[in-house]
Amino acid sequence: MKAKKRTGMNLTYRQILKWGDKREEEVDPLMLKLIKEKFDLKDPDVRLKYLSGLQEVKLEKPPGLNPLQLDFLRGIVGIENIMTDDFSRAKFSCGKFYTELLDLRFNLIPNPPDAVVSPKSHDEIVRIVGYCNNEKIPIVPAGGQSSVTGALQAPLGGIALDMMKHMNKVLKINPSNKTVTVQAGISGPALEDELNRYGFSCGHFPQSFEYSTVGGWISAKGAGQASTGYGKMEDMVVALKIATPAGVIETKEYPRTAQGWDIFRLFIGSEGTLGIITEAILNIHNYRPQNTAYASFIFKSFGQAVTSMQKIIQSEYGRPHLFRISDPDETDIAFKTKGFDNSLSDKLLKSLGFLPGKRSLMFVSVEGDKDYTRFVLKKIKGTARKGKGMYIGKSPVKKWLDQRYSSAYMRDPLMDLGIMTDTLETSVTWENLLKVWSATHAYVKQRPKTLLMIHISHVYESGANLYLTFLSPMEKGNERNDFAAFHKGLIDTIQENGGSLSHHHGVGRVLAPWMERHLGKTSMAVLRAVRKHFDPNNIMNPGGMLGIS
Amino acid sequence: MKAKKRTGMNLTYRQILKWGDKREEEVDPLMLKLIKEKFDLKDPDVRLKYLSGLQEVKLEKPPGLNPLQLDFLRGIVGIENIMTDDFSRAKFSCGKFYTELLDLRFNLIPNPPDAVVSPKSHDEIVRIVGYCNNEKIPIVPAGGQSSVTGALQAPLGGIALDMMKHMNKVLKINPSNKTVTVQAGISGPALEDELNRYGFSCGHFPQSFEYSTVGGWISAKGAGQASTGYGKMEDMVVALKIATPAGVIETKEYPRTAQGWDIFRLFIGSEGTLGIITEAILNIHNYRPQNTAYASFIFKSFGQAVTSMQKIIQSEYGRPHLFRISDPDETDIAFKTKGFDNSLSDKLLKSLGFLPGKRSLMFVSVEGDKDYTRFVLKKIKGTARKGKGMYIGKSPVKKWLDQRYSSAYMRDPLMDLGIMTDTLETSVTWENLLKVWSATHAYVKQRPKTLLMIHISHVYESGANLYLTFLSPMEKGNERNDFAAFHKGLIDTIQENGGSLSHHHGVGRVLAPWMERHLGKTSMAVLRAVRKHFDPNNIMNPGGMLGIS
Repeated sequence: MKAKKRTGMNLTYRQILKWGDKREEEVDPLMLKLIKEKFDLKDPDVRLKYLSGLQEVKLEKPPGLNPLQLDFLRGIVGIENIMTDDFSRAKFSCGKFYTELLDLRFNLIPNPPDAVVSPKSHDEIVRIVGYCNNEKIPIVPAGGQSSVTGALQAPLGGIALDMMKHMNKVLKINPSNKTVTVQAGISGPALEDELNRYGFSCGHFPQSFEYSTVGGWISAKGAGQASTGYGKMEDMVVALKIATPAGVIETKEYPRTAQGWDIFRLFIGSEGTLGIITEAILNIHNYRPQNTAYASFIFKSFGQAVTSMQKIIQSEYGRPHLFRISDPDETDIAFKTKGFDNSLSDKLLKSLGFLPGKRSLMFVSVEGDKDYTRFVLKKIKGTARKGKGMYIGKSPVKKWLDQRYSSAYMRDPLMDLGIMTDTLETSVTWENLLKVWSATHAYVKQRPKTLLMIHISHVYESGANLYLTFLSPMEKGNERNDFAAFHKGLIDTIQENGGSLSHHHGVGRVLAPWMERHLGKTSMAVLRAVRKHFDPNNIMNPGGMLGIS
Repeated sequence: MKAKKRTGMNLTYRQILKWGDKREEEVDPLMLKLIKEKFDLKDPDVRLKYLSGLQEVKLEKPPGLNPLQLDFLRGIVGIENIMTDDFSRAKFSCGKFYTELLDLRFNLIPNPPDAVVSPKSHDEIVRIVGYCNNEKIPIVPAGGQSSVTGALQAPLGGIALDMMKHMNKVLKINPSNKTVTVQAGISGPALEDELNRYGFSCGHFPQSFEYSTVGGWISAKGAGQASTGYGKMEDMVVALKIATPAGVIETKEYPRTAQGWDIFRLFIGSEGTLGIITEAILNIHNYRPQNTAYASFIFKSFGQAVTSMQKIIQSEYGRPHLFRISDPDETDIAFKTKGFDNSLSDKLLKSLGFLPGKRSLMFVSVEGDKDYTRFVLKKIKGTARKGKGMYIGKSPVKKWLDQRYSSAYMRDPLMDLGIMTDTLETSVTWENLLKVWSATHAYVKQRPKTLLMIHISHVYESGANLYLTFLSPMEKGNERNDFAAFHKGLIDTIQENGGSLSHHHGVGRVLAPWMERHLGKTSMAVLRAVRKHFDPNNIMNPGGMLGIS
């Protein structure tokens, strides 16, 4: 499919910033109505395709590799697996961070790699890493390219290592150990389809599922929508195989060990700065969707919903897999964009005291053995009821699940309309959760015509994440600086109130400037020392990653 | 109490090798009978206190620190918190590994520290580490001194850092986050008592519970008897504070993050080679022992028991907290030493086909909410029944729990009788579990008059541990070499058949020689590089630890 696109005539910036999914064509009419109201936009404003990116991609920088280097790399992967054309280099120059998309709309490709190399095996990657290390050629690994942290940029040039084209196989499903061995470039759907066929599931469903890979999940330390039950990537990895400039690391499949600290854990969250993860062994789970139990609740306030959520997760009677709360602003927007606003049921809810601007939705699913899911759901219902939550059926959570990956596609049509929109996320202890929530809302309120929706979607006994989505009209002519200033202030607010830098997006180049203040100098020195051991020549995703590359 | 002992007259090697617990005075009569039968020992043999260690402790080596150094350290911790007398140095020269105990019986103290230093605060430890780093004085951290890996030896002298005397406080219980902040030298019982008072439990009950500390648990990456439910130490640590020669690392309390790889994880399993863990934040659990559900089962073979255990843990209907199988040899010895052998019930079991030499006991407990524990236990009973296990009531597992820490005390009276006895443990995938089990039994069978008992006690979806206990008469006059050769062969056998070097005892100095073969050169280089960053002067537990110090 990629090849087909390349033979077409119109290789535009827009083809890079779009996913190629019909869900991103236009903003949902109800959402559009809401935005027009909230931001006081008139029809002419929203009809404009603002900064469309329809121009043909052209790079200023010629490829920086010399013919000998390109020939050597071709000798490893084959001539058909190296691309140096402008469109390929541009396509592999960025992920999906807001300013990257804005750059594309401005026809800017600030950080292209010199070539896109698509290896076919672990051994080829070992040879590529060895060669690039000798020649000091930067390597930027690329998976599904849905990074929102600037992790795919190549500010020092070098090669983009395209892991998806060939390194995308399930190598072994082991039903006895309940593990799967995969090549790191396999995508979410490809892995899940193969596992489902054998009665298993990977249990990892990030919103980027359709455009992300196992290698990316591990590198960024991702979390999926069922992480409350199945854990984050750091809970799923059993062993790894990694090609680094300092040699190959291959850890063995054991359930748990005490043989020194766990070396494979260095690579979970390493974001490409230490080496290329080529293969992974992951825990898998039973695939029995028919057993899943669902429940949706509504609470009169965010505080009440949070208290019940905390109570549920700390009760020790089993736990949900999917577990979410939408805060009042997100709940209101959900009601409005689903056409539920002012419906009969809505009127009933209002009459019962579940008021717009205050009420909060909670979604739950429990997976596992059939009577287990029934048992746990019953317990959760009991706790929610005691916490003054009202059960509102299975349907809201099931509807949400049906469109679980769709909201990410909303960003591009919104940007077409000149709307700035992005997400930030953090993890925080229960003790500090409402503090971070209030402080970020207070921060956003200072900016006129700005919407902030927050949800909790990954829940632990000691705390949870907060996931922030904001929308506001772009400041025409000053789009980049306006965003940067607003974004910086929001991150500062999160940090100052006790939130982590990230819960599952990772740090990349975007959050790197906050790392030293956040972790401290002594910890940064550790990250740098480990990097220096693996990558003395600074070739692994160099140029700003994690604040250390 | 320690001070009292020191003022007494008779400071013998025996006072070091004994715990000071009445359970270690003599071998249980039924156990003695069994041993006499199995090893063909006569009464005179077993009446002899072999190598009693009753001589007064005297060290050859004078303390190696100069007066200026001692004065400086006294200035930090106070004169009463530094000991340089022979008995104190001898007491802090070893843990409870078999050959360490044998050395004591031979009146040998091969690796004494020069002084025992008992700091009172994190800040004092920071100053000690800084001073020792400048002066190149080795530091060997000591907790409850129940290490069985040689981790407490001071082959290069220096100071033993006694963490238990003062660094033993609960600093904060946080009911909102369900976490506790402790000083690292707090013992198991002190922590658990304090938590129980507030309705919580630490959930970590290693057999060394009474003589171990949080710092030791983390350093060795320990596992407790309820680990199947609550996880190992790596699952319990939320954040750490560590004094290293390269500065203080203090990580923050977040449920989970994605801000680079987790630096605090370097110290879980670091075994004192990187720095001194001074404080830890741990997850805690609800303390509701009245809710715990118990079950004991018997199976006709080890294979059947293992298959049911695997089925139970992989079923996704909740999981046991305590989960054990004793293999046929351990089951038989349990029957005989509990006076159950040839009882009426035993005859009934035999008539039903549960035969000595084949039958295997399984113990289960489930903790949590009352109806949750009932629910999960019912599911487990169902799976066990389908797997041909017979439910034999709550009483066997409850009896086992009553003496859960006692069997460790059996070793010293056995050694008094000239019996060599030690344990080894490993983790292994389900796929390889029976292979390691058979191979180790086959290996031990080659040695005459040798008992091997194996149990599984830490269970994961992908595999479990195997815990081996062996007994055999010492080869008089060649005790050390005989043990070393037998022990080495057993470790080789475990490794060659797919077992890890350790599941929860750690590596220390005892297993260090296997590390490079096991992890590979590239991984060893990583361990060394990280150590070099934190400890460039090789002062942190130097001399063989993990094969890198």
